Amino acid sequence: MMIIDFRSDTFTRPTPAMLDAMYTAATGDDVYGEDPSVNALEAIMAAYFGKEAALFCPTGTMSNQIAINVHTKPGDEVIHSNLAHIYIYEGGGIAATSGAQSRPLEGDRGMFSATDVLAAINPDDVHKAATSLVCIENTMNRGGGCCYDIQEMIKIREVCLQNGLKLHLDGARLFNALVATGEKPAIYGELFDSLSVCLNKGMGCPMGSVLIGSADFIRKARRVRKRLGGGMRQAGFMAATGIYAMEHHIDRLAQDHLHAKDIAQALLEKTFVGHMLPVETNIISFDVTGDEWTPRYFCDYLKNEGILANPVADNIVRMVTHLDITPAMVAKTCAVIAEME
Amino acid sequence: MMIIDFRSDTFTRPTPAMLDAMYTAATGDDVYGEDPSVNALEAIMAAYFGKEAALFCPTGTMSNQIAINVHTKPGDEVIHSNLAHIYIYEGGGIAATSGAQSRPLEGDRGMFSATDVLAAINPDDVHKAATSLVCIENTMNRGGGCCYDIQEMIKIREVCLQNGLKLHLDGARLFNALVATGEKPAIYGELFDSLSVCLNKGMGCPMGSVLIGSADFIRKARRVRKRLGGGMRQAGFMAATGIYAMEHHIDRLAQDHLHAKDIAQALLEKTFVGHMLPVETNIISFDVTGDEWTPRYFCDYLKNEGILANPVADNIVRMVTHLDITPAMVAKTCAVIAEME
Amino acid sequence: MMIIDFRSDTFTRPTPAMLDAMYTAATGDDVYGEDPSVNALEAIMAAYFGKEAALFCPTGTMSNQIAINVHTKPGDEVIHSNLAHIYIYEGGGIAATSGAQSRPLEGDRGMFSATDVLAAINPDDVHKAATSLVCIENTMNRGGGCCYDIQEMIKIREVCLQNGLKLHLDGARLFNALVATGEKPAIYGELFDSLSVCLNKGMGCPMGSVLIGSADFIRKARRVRKRLGGGMRQAGFMAATGIYAMEHHIDRLAQDHLHAKDIAQALLEKTFVGHMLPVETNIISFDVTGDEWTPRYFCDYLKNEGILANPVADNIVRMVTHLDITPAMVAKTCAVIAEME
Amino acid sequence: MMIIDFRSDTFTRPTPAMLDAMYTAATGDDVYGEDPSVNALEAIMAAYFGKEAALFCPTGTMSNQIAINVHTKPGDEVIHSNLAHIYIYEGGGIAATSGAQSRPLEGDRGMFSATDVLAAINPDDVHKAATSLVCIENTMNRGGGCCYDIQEMIKIREVCLQNGLKLHLDGARLFNALVATGEKPAIYGELFDSLSVCLNKGMGCPMGSVLIGSADFIRKARRVRKRLGGGMRQAGFMAATGIYAMEHHIDRLAQDHLHAKDIAQALLEKTFVGHMLPVETNIISFDVTGDEWTPRYFCDYLKNEGILANPVADNIVRMVTHLDITPAMVAKTCAVIAEME
Repeated sequence: MMIIDFRSDTFTRPTPAMLDAMYTAATGDDVYGEDPSVNALEAIMAAYFGKEAALFCPTGTMSNQIAINVHTKPGDEVIHSNLAHIYIYEGGGIAATSGAQSRPLEGDRGMFSATDVLAAINPDDVHKAATSLVCIENTMNRGGGCCYDIQEMIKIREVCLQNGLKLHLDGARLFNALVATGEKPAIYGELFDSLSVCLNKGMGCPMGSVLIGSADFIRKARRVRKRLGGGMRQAGFMAATGIYAMEHHIDRLAQDHLHAKDIAQALLEKTFVGHMLPVETNIISFDVTGDEWTPRYFCDYLKNEGILANPVADNIVRMVTHLDITPAMVAKTCAVIAEME
Repeated sequence: MMIIDFRSDTFTRPTPAMLDAMYTAATGDDVYGEDPSVNALEAIMAAYFGKEAALFCPTGTMSNQIAINVHTKPGDEVIHSNLAHIYIYEGGGIAATSGAQSRPLEGDRGMFSATDVLAAINPDDVHKAATSLVCIENTMNRGGGCCYDIQEMIKIREVCLQNGLKLHLDGARLFNALVATGEKPAIYGELFDSLSVCLNKGMGCPMGSVLIGSADFIRKARRVRKRLGGGMRQAGFMAATGIYAMEHHIDRLAQDHLHAKDIAQALLEKTFVGHMLPVETNIISFDVTGDEWTPRYFCDYLKNEGILANPVADNIVRMVTHLDITPAMVAKTCAVIAEME
Repeated sequence: MMIIDFRSDTFTRPTPAMLDAMYTAATGDDVYGEDPSVNALEAIMAAYFGKEAALFCPTGTMSNQIAINVHTKPGDEVIHSNLAHIYIYEGGGIAATSGAQSRPLEGDRGMFSATDVLAAINPDDVHKAATSLVCIENTMNRGGGCCYDIQEMIKIREVCLQNGLKLHLDGARLFNALVATGEKPAIYGELFDSLSVCLNKGMGCPMGSVLIGSADFIRKARRVRKRLGGGMRQAGFMAATGIYAMEHHIDRLAQDHLHAKDIAQALLEKTFVGHMLPVETNIISFDVTGDEWTPRYFCDYLKNEGILANPVADNIVRMVTHLDITPAMVAKTCAVIAEME
Repeated sequence: MMIIDFRSDTFTRPTPAMLDAMYTAATGDDVYGEDPSVNALEAIMAAYFGKEAALFCPTGTMSNQIAINVHTKPGDEVIHSNLAHIYIYEGGGIAATSGAQSRPLEGDRGMFSATDVLAAINPDDVHKAATSLVCIENTMNRGGGCCYDIQEMIKIREVCLQNGLKLHLDGARLFNALVATGEKPAIYGELFDSLSVCLNKGMGCPMGSVLIGSADFIRKARRVRKRLGGGMRQAGFMAATGIYAMEHHIDRLAQDHLHAKDIAQALLEKTFVGHMLPVETNIISFDVTGDEWTPRYFCDYLKNEGILANPVADNIVRMVTHLDITPAMVAKTCAVIAEME
């Protein structure tokens, strides 16, 4: 049976064309700065966001944690959503790797406001951790892939500038946001001191992430990357897939978003589907409630049909569309859902 | 003009009898374990709470941070109130000194429930910080000196035991809670893996704190104390004041609590005094609201009368009674308040 | 002009057969434990050294730093050579990532003795960092690729067992040592609590390292890997090259060692070549001394002939043989050296 | 029997006059900056060394570790003697509290040269920890209380300035050095970015240390002190003893130094006394060798006579003179030594 895997967009496998890009990649020792594919990818990313420099990293977690490390010192405080990936899915790295204290903010699906940020900044007082960094995630994974309001981000940037705070973007799914909103990437380069993007997930690469910022920031980040063990050698094989994805896999995200909406539509017909977060990009996050219809039961039902979904909390199921999900798969999934009862 | 200082119970000065205890203290080099006054105080405290051992520390912050350090390792997560002293008044030490991530919980005046704790424990998952410690503060400073419900603490202890979590008490004002509730100290020794108490604050000593726990815990704590720079030499001069306070300054806290209630009563007559946290011990925390009556205006008014109070937030004033506040001072304060408007 | 690159064995490029292994690799999401190539490589490595489990990491630095992190806690002390890679080439990670203090030992080309270890263990004293880990590097890079005496390692292991210390091997070039000495890999599995090996360097893979240890150790290591940002997704493309190398690139290291000896022979004819470290594996490390013949001049001379070497210190040149160095390249290099004067 | 305690100068007890200074001290809450005695002591110390500001700390270990924390960031490297107190007696704090890697240098009795420092500075390379701080200890405890050559310190300062390194002095026994050499304190203020001095030890106070530096440095240090738990309340009782010591206990150190020389003279008559470090201040450090005369036997012999000395290593005994050692005690000690055999 064909497996249709909606558990995460991290499960994609490279297309044949991407594999060819990998196979034929020019490579060298990136620790010595001699890998042409890595250098090219870093240049492409910096230019795409209008920043000076970029750094290829093995994972988005490392990109984020490096950024936090460069922007803070131990005893500082980082403002972020209580649902932020850096807070709940990166192993306590903010504290463990950087010695920085978390100040989690509530918000609408993980999106807090400039007013929230202002209220959370500590005064200059020896009792208090020194607020030094704000982190935004866009799209917001645990918010159901929602897109942060650009006007609010602009206001947050102003609060940061007025209070001497750095602003980092966890852009693991930033390309989804760009496609969904039509925003220009350069605005992100302007708003943020640093950005991380994932090559995996929507972009469909086997692995890798890129951290983007000023030349000085990236110089410091390169040192931290080495210390954390992210300085790979012939990383160009992986970087080449990123170059390919930048050319071929951004616009197609619109298709993933349509697929997600189709499936959402099918789900909303069901009485056992409760609250669903607005489907703005490629994530469908919804409550499954009922005597019989638990998240586990729902996922097991789908699994019998070769369809994989993820129960992410006691009553929530998450489904994610991506490169490997074809229109036929979506059609089959909708049909299976339609027959549920 | 006589100054009546309600800003904090950290401002007390030793009584003549306490000063004499200090002056005549037997001392030695405590790093070598040869200070008889320190040894006596540690023995008194351990016995008082029914624990095996204790450790004299320069401050309550150090006691708390040592406990957190011994109970956790970097990458762990600590559950505590979002109003906890360890979180908002100890300079980000949980993260900076121990590399542990904060999981702040909301609650009633800083008091969360066993159910809250259970819901906040992370599953065993490489993405997640490893939950390893719960910290309770009693009385809760930012909760207006409220006393934690002993039944709820017992339930929290059960959750900790079932989930392999350690439980630490920040007992900076634990003696206030004991006097207010009539609870036996030994119950705290049973419930908590470690406790810190302050000799300053209600106890009226110039400085110092004691950390209490098992022999093994204190052995590890002693090592951390040395590393953090808390291994003092002839610390017995300070420890002797603690011994004095244990004998003479616990029961008298009831007087401070009555004083607080008297002042609260006077305040509640005023239209500009808004919400006031229930006054359970020696802290009065209340909103000052009105066109004219801002917290700053209120405190300035009192200051003109030689009375000091602390605006702790945009609209909140805090007043704290203690050893140096006499009945006459309380009477004068109530009279001044009565004339306001 | 063909470039002959002796700067490091990190510069190798995959052979066509290795590239094919990469191209055709079965992959999955390794964070979910679903990458068959990663799983296979980890199983192969664990079995090879007679250990329970293994973990694929992006770099040798990460493997080493994870091991140090799992074996220690902040305030511990790590015994290692003053020339150890973990100490001088990993960005201060022992202290920054694990909060552990370095106790660098001198020795013969970076190889210290069991007696040295015993003398360096701190007593149980609050003033002292707690000695908890010994790290050995084999072959020893900065010792000219020398092979640690197995009898001495056995004695060091005994000292560790008697004193409750863990023992980690930085085996970035362990395969070189195995080939040079004929030692069985299983003896390393017995002696060490954890081992790291590089897939890059002599093995010729684009990137990657494997950390090997007990099941419990690897379980903890997997958590640290995630936190540091080493949990990659379709890592199987890279792991597949490691599987290929385990089958095809170990025995051939003998060729690299012969090449190194040939070049060493040619160099020793030169009056400007001073002290040379014994050439036991694939590294040639020698002093270049003379009015004209500085390391820089020597390397520039070679560069004009298309031959790259590395001046690693004021008067030392290092040349490293590897997979991409053919007999013809060695012959040309020897010829160029012969003509120097 | 009267005990004559040469184990350390940390064992002194306050004189009656110092006790009176403590008893009558003006105090306040130092965390609020309201302790007049602390403020006075800090002003006295800053002026004494010609610096802008100072900070009272509970111990010398905390002063040193705060300085290291302010001057470095995690991943930095600190150059210091392999015998430095900060390295071997502060619980691994350089790494644990600041995440900084140790670069211990050998030298003459713990005193390294400017040339040694220059050679130990890492190049700007991602592989390398970033050298950022040099620490000197004067007098050097483990060097037998020797005084650092002022000309060499001036050269080290030049190397630091040329390479962007900070320079910290662990001056736990700096007053001994000043008295022994006649150097002006202001020269130390000029040479060092920060200095710590102990009030305990030669100064005879019960506890306490002062950290001295620029206003900006002390502002940062004050924050770190709070985080580490060194922000005490009515610390003026202890600070007052420091003020007293600054007036009355500096010049008298000359007496301790004479006492040390007298005892050294007596010891050198003995055949079982081997190598003795030059006695420059108040420390006598010597080998005890012979079939019968082990350090332990020697110390036990003295103990029977009521004289305490410290075996600090396998074959070394250390004796320290101080405020509580009278001429009569020295005479008795010399007499006891004379009769040994």
